[in-house]
Amino acid sequence: MALTETSSAKCFGGWQKVFAHESKELGCHMNFAIYLPPQAEDGKVPLIFWLSGLTCTEQNFITKAGAHRYAAEHGVAIVCPDTSPRGLQIPGEDDGWDFGSGAGFYVDATAEPWKKNYRMYSYVTKELPALVFDNFPVSSDRVSIMGHSMGGHGALICALKNPGKYKTVSAFAPICNPTEVPWGQKAFAGYLGPRGSGDSDLWAQYDATLLLKNYSGPPMDILIDQGTQDTWLTQLLPDNFVKACQAANMPVVLQLRDGYDHGYYFISTFIEEHIKHHARYLKA
Amino acid sequence: MALTETSSAKCFGGWQKVFAHESKELGCHMNFAIYLPPQAEDGKVPLIFWLSGLTCTEQNFITKAGAHRYAAEHGVAIVCPDTSPRGLQIPGEDDGWDFGSGAGFYVDATAEPWKKNYRMYSYVTKELPALVFDNFPVSSDRVSIMGHSMGGHGALICALKNPGKYKTVSAFAPICNPTEVPWGQKAFAGYLGPRGSGDSDLWAQYDATLLLKNYSGPPMDILIDQGTQDTWLTQLLPDNFVKACQAANMPVVLQLRDGYDHGYYFISTFIEEHIKHHARYLKA
Repeated sequence: MALTETSSAKCFGGWQKVFAHESKELGCHMNFAIYLPPQAEDGKVPLIFWLSGLTCTEQNFITKAGAHRYAAEHGVAIVCPDTSPRGLQIPGEDDGWDFGSGAGFYVDATAEPWKKNYRMYSYVTKELPALVFDNFPVSSDRVSIMGHSMGGHGALICALKNPGKYKTVSAFAPICNPTEVPWGQKAFAGYLGPRGSGDSDLWAQYDATLLLKNYSGPPMDILIDQGTQDTWLTQLLPDNFVKACQAANMPVVLQLRDGYDHGYYFISTFIEEHIKHHARYLKA
Repeated sequence: MALTETSSAKCFGGWQKVFAHESKELGCHMNFAIYLPPQAEDGKVPLIFWLSGLTCTEQNFITKAGAHRYAAEHGVAIVCPDTSPRGLQIPGEDDGWDFGSGAGFYVDATAEPWKKNYRMYSYVTKELPALVFDNFPVSSDRVSIMGHSMGGHGALICALKNPGKYKTVSAFAPICNPTEVPWGQKAFAGYLGPRGSGDSDLWAQYDATLLLKNYSGPPMDILIDQGTQDTWLTQLLPDNFVKACQAANMPVVLQLRDGYDHGYYFISTFIEEHIKHHARYLKA
């Protein structure tokens, strides 16, 4: 698969690059960002996937999170995909900021007209990792995942649906229980059809809180940061997730951050702790 | 003067805020950003002005530079103005990215039709500081200035034209000798008129390299970072500035950064050193 480098800039001794490629899963041109720390010049480095939230592209995290310093210190690469297919001319794809373009929700759609292209789950768990392992000095057996809001949901479901694939998972202000909130209900109804309409409860297969009930993999040390002044708290429901973790004996730390909101100033304040958390498991 | 808070987010224990106000100097509505470190809750803190480059607004630095951590560590506030008046309906104000909107060059224009409003020099050295001192817990006698590209030029001329007003000055990839390069010649011809057209050499009064020849204030410890892979080097001419510093016995450190370009990934990598440099003089 051919990659086209669209930008490259030195940052904290490593390189922040953006590449374009044609995605088979999504049937469109896609961009992703990769930060290669200085240590990547001497051999393979561990890799963290970052999944962004609603309306974001591959740019938001690399521009705003201030993560490069910590990725360079710990010698980890970070890959940031876009948040949906783009430019498919599907009717309605640009009608709202919480569905369609910029809002793929990291599911594989099963409903028309989305099911051919809106396959972000397969893209971020299979196609993109394979592409990255083939083209960059990263270790395919030292991988973890994190994200924000819709991407925090994405990180949690990718980890919970693939026991052992990710060394750990963390999230900032994740949508923890999408089947119970308007953002998730709108997205799942659109991409997956009405609840219970298929052979099985497809909605439950993409809800982190519900996935915990049937999780049978190794325990993961899940880290979540949540601002107390987040205006979207009613869409996130972190308490539901923590309760489900407790019922499933899954270690989880929910750090409530007094006065912080939902944005990247919040993320930038605590990203160091998340990267340290990932590095501990990636380099164990 | 009335301020309207347009955004506020907690960041590294302090607050990143943006305010709007009506500027008398510029005759228009202006935005500026201020980061108040946690220490500002207990009393007055020192202040660094950051002046941004061509096309920027008050947002670029606060979004991309990753400076909050260091400002919080050292207990300094940072104020970022916009880079020009906006929305004045002056013919030609939006015709190019290197002149007019987003390109005020931190001069007080003397030529029509710019001279009534394009008074960024007076705005950043007088009106905005007075507004900030009146409204926030910052010390008016512990102030310094830094900037990037066009804003690096702005920082240098503000410091050189006002001996003693700023405790120190630093710049990333500044336009050091604007009278000798296309960006500066276009801006100065537009805002100040043809060279030598007024009572005195107005152009020389806004050129950092030329200002050094007549500088008679206390020595400043000037810090400049410059990427070696900066594609705009021919617009910047740092060597001219260093030679003029040497001739004027002005201490200057020009740090050439191998492989870095002109952008914010470069700035974010070295902003810690600049804030440390400023803190040393602001807290002396």
